[in-house]
Amino acid sequence: MLVIGRSEVEAVIDIASMAVDIEAAYVAASAGEVEIPPVGHITFPDVDGDCHIKYGHRRGDADFVIKIATGFPHQSSHGQPTGNGMSLVISATTGEVQAILHDEMLLTDIRTGIGGAIATRRLARSDATKLLIVGTGVQARRQIEAHVELLDRPLDVRVWGRSAAAAATVVDDLRASAKAQVATDLAAACRWADIIATSTAADEPIIADEWIAPGTHITAVGADASGKHELDAHLLQRADLLVADSAAQCLDHGEFSAIADDPERASAVVELGNLLARPTLARSTNDITIADLTGIAAQDIAAARNVLAQLGIDRHSTV
Amino acid sequence: MLVIGRSEVEAVIDIASMAVDIEAAYVAASAGEVEIPPVGHITFPDVDGDCHIKYGHRRGDADFVIKIATGFPHQSSHGQPTGNGMSLVISATTGEVQAILHDEMLLTDIRTGIGGAIATRRLARSDATKLLIVGTGVQARRQIEAHVELLDRPLDVRVWGRSAAAAATVVDDLRASAKAQVATDLAAACRWADIIATSTAADEPIIADEWIAPGTHITAVGADASGKHELDAHLLQRADLLVADSAAQCLDHGEFSAIADDPERASAVVELGNLLARPTLARSTNDITIADLTGIAAQDIAAARNVLAQLGIDRHSTV
Repeated sequence: MLVIGRSEVEAVIDIASMAVDIEAAYVAASAGEVEIPPVGHITFPDVDGDCHIKYGHRRGDADFVIKIATGFPHQSSHGQPTGNGMSLVISATTGEVQAILHDEMLLTDIRTGIGGAIATRRLARSDATKLLIVGTGVQARRQIEAHVELLDRPLDVRVWGRSAAAAATVVDDLRASAKAQVATDLAAACRWADIIATSTAADEPIIADEWIAPGTHITAVGADASGKHELDAHLLQRADLLVADSAAQCLDHGEFSAIADDPERASAVVELGNLLARPTLARSTNDITIADLTGIAAQDIAAARNVLAQLGIDRHSTV
Repeated sequence: MLVIGRSEVEAVIDIASMAVDIEAAYVAASAGEVEIPPVGHITFPDVDGDCHIKYGHRRGDADFVIKIATGFPHQSSHGQPTGNGMSLVISATTGEVQAILHDEMLLTDIRTGIGGAIATRRLARSDATKLLIVGTGVQARRQIEAHVELLDRPLDVRVWGRSAAAAATVVDDLRASAKAQVATDLAAACRWADIIATSTAADEPIIADEWIAPGTHITAVGADASGKHELDAHLLQRADLLVADSAAQCLDHGEFSAIADDPERASAVVELGNLLARPTLARSTNDITIADLTGIAAQDIAAARNVLAQLGIDRHSTV
């Protein structure tokens, strides 16, 4: 059994390579080729903490993966990371534990960023270059990193946060890799943007319907639990295309839970994997498209296995 | 993060000490003091394998525990263990992983044996000494080990198996710790016994109703999945007391699933933890009592934390 720490994982991260595997994972998941049991969840109300267990097996893979992710928001007041966790890679034929990736949330953060950029790449206009990042946390940085890496064109990045100082820090940190500036007026920035990527912990919508121009694409990853919302409910009604990583998950506890009671609208949600499998299906220029991503086990499986492959210790499939 | 292997865990196992903690865990679970989400489960149909994830948090504990157990029965034909797995001990206030007990199923086997002996100690007649073990696998040995350790009286042990040779091997192996012999006739052995502990993989009942005399206690741990049964359904109707570690689990996929469709009988099932909490409630001499144990996360939590305590690295409760 290999135990691989965060720094060892970090040293071999290759966004482009992992994106290839995660894109294939979305396609496989929507095609029913990944066995994904219900997400495990336990809460620690005294400290507002929780733990999610996402796990599954892609048909034919030699190993299955159990990903454990904890969230303890009060840790930030002690200057400690709020997220933690690991991925267990276990043989699907013998039960032997092949590897523990004790990545302390790193892979979850990275695969979420990659998922966002894959959704944007598939759904935004092909000439879209104006990227507004809403949020200033770890995930905002991961979204920028993945969008810059995976969209094959120069991006003009603006970053908005409730704290302008936090937004300035994000901009400073990424100056080497992308042209970026702080957005001070969220409404104006939304009107300017071709692409909006939101990754806040908002529990009330912060993006108003009237700020969104035709032709805009929005990738929303912040709403990952009941009661969290980033987008105006009217915008969800007006959008021309609603895309989810998992329709069931997103309607249950993602951004799209706001339309779960509207059978017509809910049934219009399509899965990202199905769109990735049909690359010739194109958007219209003036469509408003929204991707809601809550994170699926298929991504975690692909991310963990990609890291092992980068380390030269992957195992062949059984098919 | 500590990674503790099977041999290190095995070196500090103290059945008596762990039984104290597991008994308290049963009481706490039945009193609603342990947060136990639904058991996670994934199957690997090509090789008849599966993986269970049992996890939870006992109120006030500094850590919560995630126990992962795999079963790949075909491994036995390669001379390899069929069970594998680990327990993760994670802080319930910060999410930091405190320890990984990579015990490869050892703790699951031991806590199941201890659970069986705790149930027998609570439910059998206080003068019961004639113990029939039905089954010859790892769990049969663990049941004997725990019964000998936890029942404070000399036991006369007989072991029955479909293979008399396998039963003879079990008897040989435990000659040092208990007076034991092979039982060749299951019907006669059941009539002889005060206590019957079953741990087979039977999917058809192997213990007939008419073999069981008044006053007998049965602890059944073999039926841990849908379709598995060790006891005649008529016996479940005739018994005077039906006890489960978790009523919900046992009625869903344990021995008691055979009575799940009988509301009157199903509602008569009482939980072991509730009986352990009320030690003055006694059986009648001629009662037939049956304990059905499917294994609960509260046991796994207690077992993992007990091992850390034995290693001198336990953490205090937060209350």
